[in-house]
Amino acid sequence: MTSESDTAHCSTRPRGARVALCLGFVSSLAACAAHSDRPDNGAAPLVIQEQGSFAAGGTMTTAPGTFNPYKPLTPDGQTYHGDHAYAFYQIPVDARKLPIVMWHGAGQFSKTWETTADGREGFQTIFLRRQFGVYLIDQPRRGAAGRSMVEATLKPVPDEQLWFNQFRIGLWPNYFDGVQVARDASTRNQFFRAMTPNTGPFDMNVVSAGVSSVFDKIGPGILFTHSQGGGPGWLTAIRNNQVKAIVAFEPGSSFVFPEGELPAPIPSAFDTVQGAAVPMEQFKALTRIPILVLYGDNIPEQPVELPAQDSWRARLEMARLWRDAVNRHGGDVRLIHLPEIGIKGNTHFPMSDLNNVQIADLVSGFLHEKGLD
Amino acid sequence: MTSESDTAHCSTRPRGARVALCLGFVSSLAACAAHSDRPDNGAAPLVIQEQGSFAAGGTMTTAPGTFNPYKPLTPDGQTYHGDHAYAFYQIPVDARKLPIVMWHGAGQFSKTWETTADGREGFQTIFLRRQFGVYLIDQPRRGAAGRSMVEATLKPVPDEQLWFNQFRIGLWPNYFDGVQVARDASTRNQFFRAMTPNTGPFDMNVVSAGVSSVFDKIGPGILFTHSQGGGPGWLTAIRNNQVKAIVAFEPGSSFVFPEGELPAPIPSAFDTVQGAAVPMEQFKALTRIPILVLYGDNIPEQPVELPAQDSWRARLEMARLWRDAVNRHGGDVRLIHLPEIGIKGNTHFPMSDLNNVQIADLVSGFLHEKGLD
Repeated sequence: MTSESDTAHCSTRPRGARVALCLGFVSSLAACAAHSDRPDNGAAPLVIQEQGSFAAGGTMTTAPGTFNPYKPLTPDGQTYHGDHAYAFYQIPVDARKLPIVMWHGAGQFSKTWETTADGREGFQTIFLRRQFGVYLIDQPRRGAAGRSMVEATLKPVPDEQLWFNQFRIGLWPNYFDGVQVARDASTRNQFFRAMTPNTGPFDMNVVSAGVSSVFDKIGPGILFTHSQGGGPGWLTAIRNNQVKAIVAFEPGSSFVFPEGELPAPIPSAFDTVQGAAVPMEQFKALTRIPILVLYGDNIPEQPVELPAQDSWRARLEMARLWRDAVNRHGGDVRLIHLPEIGIKGNTHFPMSDLNNVQIADLVSGFLHEKGLD
Repeated sequence: MTSESDTAHCSTRPRGARVALCLGFVSSLAACAAHSDRPDNGAAPLVIQEQGSFAAGGTMTTAPGTFNPYKPLTPDGQTYHGDHAYAFYQIPVDARKLPIVMWHGAGQFSKTWETTADGREGFQTIFLRRQFGVYLIDQPRRGAAGRSMVEATLKPVPDEQLWFNQFRIGLWPNYFDGVQVARDASTRNQFFRAMTPNTGPFDMNVVSAGVSSVFDKIGPGILFTHSQGGGPGWLTAIRNNQVKAIVAFEPGSSFVFPEGELPAPIPSAFDTVQGAAVPMEQFKALTRIPILVLYGDNIPEQPVELPAQDSWRARLEMARLWRDAVNRHGGDVRLIHLPEIGIKGNTHFPMSDLNNVQIADLVSGFLHEKGLD
């Protein structure tokens, strides 16, 4: 009833019952039933000590002149606050010491970590069940943090087949064999509606400043980034030593290297992937925290002609160079290309793919190994 | 720590402890402590059976031509989904039969019902504690529902002194005597950052269609509206008989009357408030459900020169005419001007004012009286 998918959903509505009624697809059935004796079990109630939301960071401008309350539609002397980040948080009872801050990618918002397109629990709720405090971010100039200090024009330009391919669900209209995505129309509809536009120009410094302000407010925590959030995620850890670890899901093209150690740009059929140089002292911040980087399936190892595929070949290649650079300077980056450890079919959204509990297990293992839980 | 206000917040972080530590302002202290033996007590954990999010409604367009995966930045043959509503929901264990759908006003988003600007619990969490399922809406073309079917240009025009006055906090930079708002800088900062712009033109039919689609998905429920949400809220109840009651907080200017029964427009120093005519059969839908309308304090009964004040004089006057029209046709509208029953100092945001628990009690009493809980 509250689930999007009419054809594949887990009902958890019977009051207090610890059973999951699973309807529809076998894949959905498996996702629901596989963990019935675990805390992930969707039927167990969440016990939340505290929840809420706040804005963090941002700037403010004042128009010249004097405010006239009889001409309130004139900006004279009025203020405008913008470029803050927004966070919605939940702290479970008996929370672990470090909360997780989850940051979306390009064209996305907090929804990335909420209910999946086919109606299952996302990482927001999965990690709450695992006793982590969870903060979902909308970065400055996106979604709930839409007051931008810079003007923008938003146009409804059709682009969803680009995203279907770019997010490695398949080659539109076909799905990759074994891809970890439900194929019904309702899932596709929800997936495309999980986007919201930039309300101002994307700016690495603005968004990393906003998320750094979230850490100023909450104190030490673990940062999860997705896609385009990866690059400003590195900058956030450089800005703020309250970032105690990063788990980057398919970070995009903005990897930072020490000045003088930039690798050659990597051309692809989509674009050219380039590193960004920062002073060594800034770079060293990335060597002081454990970092896990995950990439999914259907990324070619050799150049291919299709832009959507080749862009990820180049990004994965740059990510490996970056891992090597951080580790060469004493860092602790682990890069996992999921198919190499036998986890197949993941798209650009491992946190919401059909096997997202398996991915959460992998991340939980890393956090435990590093003493972060 | 997770609370915005450094000077006035209720800490509920001690694990499992059923105490509220209250710091700072006496008003805050009172808000925290007054209900320590009630389910509203901020220190009691929330027990959530299910939570998640989904898009509802909306439309889709396809660009002419054929999608070429080698030219993915060209719109040819690509689709675009937009104009859906977005909802984040939480269903408590042992939920009451009808959930509450909470819908924001102009320039606002789901934040209206979340943590208040001074860091207290908003109606989202207060009504969860009272065992209601709660759905928070972002209407089409706002916040999390930002993919608009119509282009828009967003400009950072300073306007916050307009809102300070229009929302009846005071006459900038002064606060009304006894106004139910904390006066510290942090609260003001959070308040101004609780806005997010339209990403497309505001359209009564688009937004009411979106929220009606939420009711299609969830079934019968109670609709709370705020301000500009009031007008399309009436249209939503006309569209969808799953709307079983409405509580309208300070509805704006779009009151619907039967064709032939439109009252004369009411001019004000801000604008002219006009009713909208609908066929009698549509209007009758509003006579079949209980409706509570609340207005706060500092609304003059006679015309005044200041636009921000006079606009509410005209709106309250139109609201009374509308109440009388619905009740004349057999309806059940109760309009409460809060100062008339001794509740003073409320702004345009009774759901987040310092006395919001008192306001919630008033609403709970209405829902109980009408058999809606």
